[in-house]
Amino acid sequence: MSQQDYTSLTSRFETYLSAHQPYGVPDTLYEPIRYINDLGGKRIRPVLLLMAYNLWHEDVTPALPAALAVEYFHNFSLMHDDIMDEAPLRRGKPTVHIAYGRNSAILSGDALLIRCFDVLLEAGRHRGISADLCSCMCKASLEICEGQQMDMDFEKREAPTESEYLEMIRKKTACLIGVSLQLGAMLAGASQTEVSALYRFGEQLGLGFQIQDDYLDIYGDAARTGKQQGGDILQGKKNFPFVHTYNTISPSDRIQFLNDCVLACHQADIKPVIRWYEQVDMAHYMLDIQSRFLASSMEELDQLSDSDSSRLQDLAIRLMVRDH
Amino acid sequence: MSQQDYTSLTSRFETYLSAHQPYGVPDTLYEPIRYINDLGGKRIRPVLLLMAYNLWHEDVTPALPAALAVEYFHNFSLMHDDIMDEAPLRRGKPTVHIAYGRNSAILSGDALLIRCFDVLLEAGRHRGISADLCSCMCKASLEICEGQQMDMDFEKREAPTESEYLEMIRKKTACLIGVSLQLGAMLAGASQTEVSALYRFGEQLGLGFQIQDDYLDIYGDAARTGKQQGGDILQGKKNFPFVHTYNTISPSDRIQFLNDCVLACHQADIKPVIRWYEQVDMAHYMLDIQSRFLASSMEELDQLSDSDSSRLQDLAIRLMVRDH
Repeated sequence: MSQQDYTSLTSRFETYLSAHQPYGVPDTLYEPIRYINDLGGKRIRPVLLLMAYNLWHEDVTPALPAALAVEYFHNFSLMHDDIMDEAPLRRGKPTVHIAYGRNSAILSGDALLIRCFDVLLEAGRHRGISADLCSCMCKASLEICEGQQMDMDFEKREAPTESEYLEMIRKKTACLIGVSLQLGAMLAGASQTEVSALYRFGEQLGLGFQIQDDYLDIYGDAARTGKQQGGDILQGKKNFPFVHTYNTISPSDRIQFLNDCVLACHQADIKPVIRWYEQVDMAHYMLDIQSRFLASSMEELDQLSDSDSSRLQDLAIRLMVRDH
Repeated sequence: MSQQDYTSLTSRFETYLSAHQPYGVPDTLYEPIRYINDLGGKRIRPVLLLMAYNLWHEDVTPALPAALAVEYFHNFSLMHDDIMDEAPLRRGKPTVHIAYGRNSAILSGDALLIRCFDVLLEAGRHRGISADLCSCMCKASLEICEGQQMDMDFEKREAPTESEYLEMIRKKTACLIGVSLQLGAMLAGASQTEVSALYRFGEQLGLGFQIQDDYLDIYGDAARTGKQQGGDILQGKKNFPFVHTYNTISPSDRIQFLNDCVLACHQADIKPVIRWYEQVDMAHYMLDIQSRFLASSMEELDQLSDSDSSRLQDLAIRLMVRDH
């Protein structure tokens, strides 16, 4: 089976997305949807869905509607999360609630979530698996909401434990990557074992992907990431380095650590926080955790009989060790 | 076929709803959902679904999950609409965004919408029509979003036309009543003609129901409705009486009419607005429109062969001529 690479599948998906932008009456409901769909991004979830499908079928055309559905879900969640986080910018442009108002961002987000399910029902019709696809998506979607709620709940606490943090990112981020691969495999007619293996591959990949995001916040090169170094620290986000440090240092040190975090309002003030990270050997610790996620994701791929998963392997490595 | 009355079906549904309140981790996501489900209300949509099913089957048990799904959808839309309308109270209690915060109302609303689809998929499984039920729900849901968007867009205009207003309430209110009856009929195994007839019956009923709401705002007895007389006028809502008056009087009169509406900030100030309504013979006009909706809803019921729809007829009349 000739496998298509990330770039060609991305461009295939972009074309499909553009050709399927939603319009309707009143169009004020659909314009914010087209706006967020047009903002770009890596399109990781739809392309992973296509790659999963591509393990069994050369022509990915029948999987494009399902790929659209997962991108719709992702964009719906960005629209609503950005309201909750009061984020002014996304990919360098005003977020939907800034560009169109908060009420539009709520309502167009709702419409986009509904379109996700509608498109997914259509996507499974030719194989008679519409209800199964939707059911998997519902379960994942609820977990994603739970992850976002956990994240909001953490903000009200001093710090979650490390395992609570990992459970939060599993739900909030990894779940959608898992279900994208799962849906692709289901559409391809893969066995239950293979479908589950691809879900877990995606889940482990998603965990590693998020840890890499947190890693790049401190150790990334701002010129490559396009983000301010220590941005999470400056915004007071309880990311993995924060959680690990808090739970590693002695309770008596925590007061000083929290104090240093609170005082880090400008780039010049993040050094004391970085020193705490050095004290707990953060870089090595995070790379170690990541390599474990990578290893477990690779193990899942071994369960795919008769398929050449080398492209997925390559991609997993690229997504985890990326520098931006 | 012995048909069950509204009261007994309502109590049957209330029991089912209470026994199926959602719990999960973190429970902060599900508590606002249980709160809104517990707020009560007439449960019109789920009970209409059960009544539609009951036209063909005595035991409504297999239709209870679908009834739950439409009530979930209704409560999801209330949660989000209340944020958009900045409503502090619903049924005399704080709205979800007041009781739990705006972010919770957004996120728990999302989770409730997802639960609606999840429950609906389960509801259709025993008949193998999960995807069909969900597909109808998706189409109706999108129309409901469109209706809410039209309503928000109207706020930014001087006044919509009468037919634009009717199209808005058809989408925003009547659609969900239509789809509730439709889903009940589909689950019952009704013919396509019967399913469509029940949808249209619900749509006409929903239109009449909303017009009655608007009518009661002016001509209702506050002691019976539990609402302030002229509440819509005081809130500056562009309801049917406003729209009809604006479009009936001469363009030169409109300035004075709009001025009287703007000045109506207290109960004592609504009299000039009521006088405009008298000038266009509002009460008769609205009762006439309503009786036309009632007549067309009844015509649809004639298409149900071999079923005794007298209970639905009774209910339609009761819902339209209700005094509260």
